[in-house]
Amino acid sequence: MLKAEFPRNCWYVAAWSHELDEGPLGRTILGEPLVLWCDGQGHPVALADRCCHRGAPLSMGRCVDGRLQCMYHGLKFDQSGHCIEMPGQDQVPRKARVRAYPLVQRGQWLWVWMGEPERAREADIPHTPWLDAERWPYRPGYYHYQAPAELINDNLLDFSHLSYVHEGTLGGSEAIAGTRPQVTPLPHGLRIERRVEGVPPAPNITRFTSVRGTVNRWFSYDFLLPGVLLMEFCTEPTDGGEPLMQYTCQAVTPETPHTAHYFFMGTRDFALADPAVTEAIYEGLVTAFEEDRLIIEAQYRALREQGDFAPVATVADQALIQFRRLVEQRVAEDSAKS
Amino acid sequence: MLKAEFPRNCWYVAAWSHELDEGPLGRTILGEPLVLWCDGQGHPVALADRCCHRGAPLSMGRCVDGRLQCMYHGLKFDQSGHCIEMPGQDQVPRKARVRAYPLVQRGQWLWVWMGEPERAREADIPHTPWLDAERWPYRPGYYHYQAPAELINDNLLDFSHLSYVHEGTLGGSEAIAGTRPQVTPLPHGLRIERRVEGVPPAPNITRFTSVRGTVNRWFSYDFLLPGVLLMEFCTEPTDGGEPLMQYTCQAVTPETPHTAHYFFMGTRDFALADPAVTEAIYEGLVTAFEEDRLIIEAQYRALREQGDFAPVATVADQALIQFRRLVEQRVAEDSAKS
Amino acid sequence: MLKAEFPRNCWYVAAWSHELDEGPLGRTILGEPLVLWCDGQGHPVALADRCCHRGAPLSMGRCVDGRLQCMYHGLKFDQSGHCIEMPGQDQVPRKARVRAYPLVQRGQWLWVWMGEPERAREADIPHTPWLDAERWPYRPGYYHYQAPAELINDNLLDFSHLSYVHEGTLGGSEAIAGTRPQVTPLPHGLRIERRVEGVPPAPNITRFTSVRGTVNRWFSYDFLLPGVLLMEFCTEPTDGGEPLMQYTCQAVTPETPHTAHYFFMGTRDFALADPAVTEAIYEGLVTAFEEDRLIIEAQYRALREQGDFAPVATVADQALIQFRRLVEQRVAEDSAKS
Repeated sequence: MLKAEFPRNCWYVAAWSHELDEGPLGRTILGEPLVLWCDGQGHPVALADRCCHRGAPLSMGRCVDGRLQCMYHGLKFDQSGHCIEMPGQDQVPRKARVRAYPLVQRGQWLWVWMGEPERAREADIPHTPWLDAERWPYRPGYYHYQAPAELINDNLLDFSHLSYVHEGTLGGSEAIAGTRPQVTPLPHGLRIERRVEGVPPAPNITRFTSVRGTVNRWFSYDFLLPGVLLMEFCTEPTDGGEPLMQYTCQAVTPETPHTAHYFFMGTRDFALADPAVTEAIYEGLVTAFEEDRLIIEAQYRALREQGDFAPVATVADQALIQFRRLVEQRVAEDSAKS
Repeated sequence: MLKAEFPRNCWYVAAWSHELDEGPLGRTILGEPLVLWCDGQGHPVALADRCCHRGAPLSMGRCVDGRLQCMYHGLKFDQSGHCIEMPGQDQVPRKARVRAYPLVQRGQWLWVWMGEPERAREADIPHTPWLDAERWPYRPGYYHYQAPAELINDNLLDFSHLSYVHEGTLGGSEAIAGTRPQVTPLPHGLRIERRVEGVPPAPNITRFTSVRGTVNRWFSYDFLLPGVLLMEFCTEPTDGGEPLMQYTCQAVTPETPHTAHYFFMGTRDFALADPAVTEAIYEGLVTAFEEDRLIIEAQYRALREQGDFAPVATVADQALIQFRRLVEQRVAEDSAKS
Repeated sequence: MLKAEFPRNCWYVAAWSHELDEGPLGRTILGEPLVLWCDGQGHPVALADRCCHRGAPLSMGRCVDGRLQCMYHGLKFDQSGHCIEMPGQDQVPRKARVRAYPLVQRGQWLWVWMGEPERAREADIPHTPWLDAERWPYRPGYYHYQAPAELINDNLLDFSHLSYVHEGTLGGSEAIAGTRPQVTPLPHGLRIERRVEGVPPAPNITRFTSVRGTVNRWFSYDFLLPGVLLMEFCTEPTDGGEPLMQYTCQAVTPETPHTAHYFFMGTRDFALADPAVTEAIYEGLVTAFEEDRLIIEAQYRALREQGDFAPVATVADQALIQFRRLVEQRVAEDSAKS
C-alpha cells in the first residue's frame, strides 16, 4: 500500500521564508539534505547540505559577504554552489562545488525544484493568493511527520475523516462522512467539492464567531501535484446570517520515504483586522492537525509492522485512488525523460 | 542461544482485565498487533489491530453500541471481526473484516489463543486459583521487557539467581544457589521444588512481618507452557512460629522476538484483611522484578552484540534446558499440524 | 570516505584509572565489550564482558576477594578469565572461562591490547609524561562520540579548523587556517608543527591569564597510532612577556564502527599551584571539544545519509591523508600476521 518513489520534476514547498531569518537552514527534501540560506540581498538559495571538502553540513555555516562559509575549515561557496575560497590555498579546483537547486519565493513559501534544473519553469508553481500576508492575515504553521507524505495526501483527499478524527474541531457531524464529494480532474490534480446541509457548525468556528444552531457548509479545494491543497470553504447560517468564507493553503513535502514536512495556514474574509481571530484560526488548525498526525503516524506504524496489507476500498476512496494514479504517472514520466 | 520461534497453539496471557476499563487496548502478542476491547456486555474481544480500510489501528477507536468503531473513517466491526457499517455506503463488501482471536477471561487474566482457532480448548487454560480477587487480596503487576520471553523464562526456571540478583529482596542467602531443586516433568511443563534450611528470612518478608532470626524456606512451582509460573512458597520460623504461606501467578508473553510482557501478582494466607500487607507484597515484587529486568535486559544486549555465544551449562540449568526442549517440541508440533 | 576496519595489534586507551574506583566498568573497544576491574591489590584487569554461563555482563558484578563475581548466578572469575567457582557445583569445567586482555596502567591511563596477546609489548606504549599527576596538575576529561574514531583523528590532524570551529575558544584568528604546518613522518605516526605570528591570543587563554594584545603561537605535536595526540604549545606575548607553555594528551579509541571514546587532559608550566587555573583549562577544553563534537557528529550524519561521497582534498589535508595511510598499513599488517 506504500510507494517509496516520488515525482522529481515538481516544485515542492521547502520552507516558510521566515525560517531563513536566523541563518542557514538545513532541510531534507526527497531524502536529499539541502541548506537554504539568504544571500543578504534578499535572495534565498538552495544548495546540497554537504561541504565538498570533508562532508560537514553547510547548514552549520554562516553567510559572509553574500557567500556561504563552511564553519568546519572555512571554505566559501557562491549562490551557484561553486567554492570560491579555500583558506591557505591560492587556487580552488574546479570540481570544488556542491549542487544548487532552483528555489523560488511565492508569498511566504519557498518552492524548490528537485528534478532536472533545465525543466524547472516558474509558471508551473501553483497560484497561492492567500499567502499574500499583506492582504490576508495568518500565522504560518508547520508540523513534522513520522509518516510518509502519501498517507498525509490520502488523508487530505478524503474529508470523511472530519467526522471522526476532527469530531471536536473541524467536524462536528457524521453528515460529512455521509455525503459524497464531487471529484473533477484538473491538469495537475483534482478538484473536490462537498456540500452538507443542516448541520451544526464546526466546533472550531464556534470558538471565534457567534455562529450557533444549524448551518450549511461547503468545501471546494484543488489538490495538486506533488501534494498541495488550496481550499475555500464556507459556513452559511441557516437563520440567514452572513456566510463566513475561509481559505487555507497546505503543502505536504516528503522528507524521506518515512517522514514528511507539512506546511499550513488558514485565513478568512471576515474580521480581517482582529488578531485574536488570526490566532484562534491558527490554534484551531494546530489542534486539528495534531489529531491528524496522531492517527496517521499510528496508521503508518501499523502498516510498517506488517508489510502485506491489502486495503479494502470504500466509496470515500475515489479521490485518493485517482491522485495516487497521477503521482504514479508523474514518476513514470520522470523515468521516461531521464 | 536465542530462538525466534514461538509455539502458537497455546493460550497466552494478553492482559489484566482492568486494562480494558478505559477503552480499547492495543497490545502486540507474538508480533501480531491486537486490539482488546469490551463489548459493553462484559465480554472481552480480541481482533487484529488494523482497520481493513486504510490500516489505522482499531485500538484508537471506541466501542459504540457494542461495536468497535474505527476513528479514522468511521467503519464499525462486530465481535467476530466483520465490518458491519461503512459511512456513506449502503453495502459492505464481504471481504471487509479483520481477524478475530479466541479470548477468555479467568480471574483477572485475559487469555488469547494465537494458533488455529479450531484447536482452542478452554480446558487447556492453566488453573490459577490465586487470581480470584474475592478470596485472595492482591494488586496486579505488569512489566514491559526489552528482552525476549525465553530469557525471562530461563530466569524463572533457575532460582539460584535469588541469591545474587535478589540479595536484598527475595533472596538473603547464598544457600539458595547452593541447593539443588527437584525437577519433575508435567504434561505441559515442569514442577520445581526446593528446600533450604536454617537461613535468614527473605529481606522482603521482614518488611511486613515480624519474622526474624532463622527460618526454613521451601518453594514449589509449576512452570507451564508457554511461560506461566504458579507457585506456593513457605517461610517456616525455626523458633516454632507460624509458617507463612505465599502464592504467586506470573506469566511471560512474547510481544516480539525482542520484547515481552510480564504479568505478575502475589498473595498470601495470612493477614488477609490487611491492605498494607497487600501493598507491601506488591511493592516487594515490583522492586525484585525490576532487579530481574535490569540483569535480563543487560544480558540480552550482551547476547545481541555478539551472536556467536555458546553457553557453558551448570547444574542449575537442568530445568531451563528441559523447558526449552518442551518449547521446541511444541513449535515442531505446530509446524506438523499446519 | 569511511573505513570500518581498525588496527588490532595496538595499545588503545581504554579508561582513566579512576573510572574503576566505583567497581567494575563496562566499556566496549573495537566493538568488543570489556569489563575493566581492579583486583583489590591495585591491579587493573580487562576481561570479556560476558559471563560464559548465560551471557550476563560481568560489569554488573562485583569484586569479591580479588575475584570478579557475576551477579546473575554467582560464578567467580580470576584475573586470567578462568571461572574458579560455580555455586552448588563441585567441579568447574575447563572451558568455563572468558577472554582476558593485556591491560597496563601508565599515569592515569589504562591501555588495553586488542590484538594477539603474544605480540603485546609494553615498550610500545607511547610515553605520556604529562599524565604524571604528581608533577602536572590536571583534571581528566572524557567525551563519548556518536561518530567514528577516524573522523576525530581527521579533525586532530588538521588544525585549520581552530579558526572556524574554535573561533571563540582555541582559535581567535583566521591566520591559523592561513598557515601551513610542517609534517614529519615518525616510526608510528606523524609530527606536526605550526607557527603563527602577530595574532590575538586564543580566547581561552585570556580567561585565566592576563595576556592581551598580540602574540606569536606555536604548536608541536606527535600524532601516533592508533590515535594518540601528545602536544606542546606555546603563547609568546610580542610585548616581551613570559612565554606560556601548555601540554595536552588526547586519545581517540573506537568503541564501534559508529562511535568512539575520547580521552583528554591539559596542563601547563605556569601557575602550577593554582587550582583555579587547572579548572579553567579543563573547562576551556570541555567547551572547545564540545564544539568539535557538534560538527563531527553532524559531519558523520551527513556522510551516513549518502554513502557515495568523494571528498575534494585541500592542502590542509596533507597530514590526515598520510595518517589514514598509516592506519591502512597497520590493518594490512594485522591480516598478514594472522
